[in-house]
Amino acid sequence: MDAVHRILAKRDLRTYADRPIPPDVLTRILEAGRRSGSARNRQPWEFVVATDAEVRRALARCGRFAAHLARAPAVVVIAVEGARDLFDAGRCAQSMMLAAWLLGVASCPVALHDERGARAALGLPEGPVLAPAVALGYPDPAGRGRLERVALRVLAGRGRKPLADLVSWNRYGNRA
Amino acid sequence: MDAVHRILAKRDLRTYADRPIPPDVLTRILEAGRRSGSARNRQPWEFVVATDAEVRRALARCGRFAAHLARAPAVVVIAVEGARDLFDAGRCAQSMMLAAWLLGVASCPVALHDERGARAALGLPEGPVLAPAVALGYPDPAGRGRLERVALRVLAGRGRKPLADLVSWNRYGNRA
Repeated sequence: MDAVHRILAKRDLRTYADRPIPPDVLTRILEAGRRSGSARNRQPWEFVVATDAEVRRALARCGRFAAHLARAPAVVVIAVEGARDLFDAGRCAQSMMLAAWLLGVASCPVALHDERGARAALGLPEGPVLAPAVALGYPDPAGRGRLERVALRVLAGRGRKPLADLVSWNRYGNRA
Repeated sequence: MDAVHRILAKRDLRTYADRPIPPDVLTRILEAGRRSGSARNRQPWEFVVATDAEVRRALARCGRFAAHLARAPAVVVIAVEGARDLFDAGRCAQSMMLAAWLLGVASCPVALHDERGARAALGLPEGPVLAPAVALGYPDPAGRGRLERVALRVLAGRGRKPLADLVSWNRYGNRA
């Protein structure tokens, strides 16, 4: 039950400590992505892991809300075969992020709006579809940075919809 | 660490015991979906939970590999605002399935190819995009059924790609 609590408590965090992720921890996180399920076991993904500061800075310029990629010690870009694979990319990303979370590593996915720029930064050819990039890092013990506080004011302020507003039973709109 | 192991060990299973999921367990699974992150905290989803046998049988006819929906005690259909939300739908589904797994409940998502039929079965209007449906159920203590064995022969036979073939470092194709 404890692990379920921890899954439920997972937050997307954008402020990271200036501390690398040890290779064995990073491997474990990538393993969680590798092992997540996919339609007909196609495993339609590849991962480009950016640990190099120059590459991460370039990626940070490729999204409107991607500044935190420059400070995350590792960024995993998931490239899938086609747009229909984005559901499986989301499963894969969530498995990585939840495994990371259980290992003490925070994360936050972010869209790379400038796809051409992201491809250039990673040397990724045309063809594979870019899913949101997953930033990984240990939470900053000093707490949330300025960027994160701005994001939180905007985003967390919206709150979460209650389950009663999200769930229908057997027929759409049947809230009973 | 144990919980990470359990996440890594999650299998998609299609054969379920003839045993309902208690409401509190189902609620907990749905909570994991509700709490999973989404771009700009938009929470672009609604869940239609089919527990009624007639509705599940109708859904089972809406996908080429969906026969197991008829025997799953609960099926969660995730409807999102648009196709760009399928990544978040995948995150949401994976959170539900991993929480379920930790609670002893197996799962398997499946595409609903006959979208019109699925909308009719659920009374879902045009507009929201259907993500794959998530079948939930306790694993059958008698083991995998015929369907599952066929699926396994085809799918698991493909194995999983090794991490070394999936991961590039900093630049696409750099396997070092």
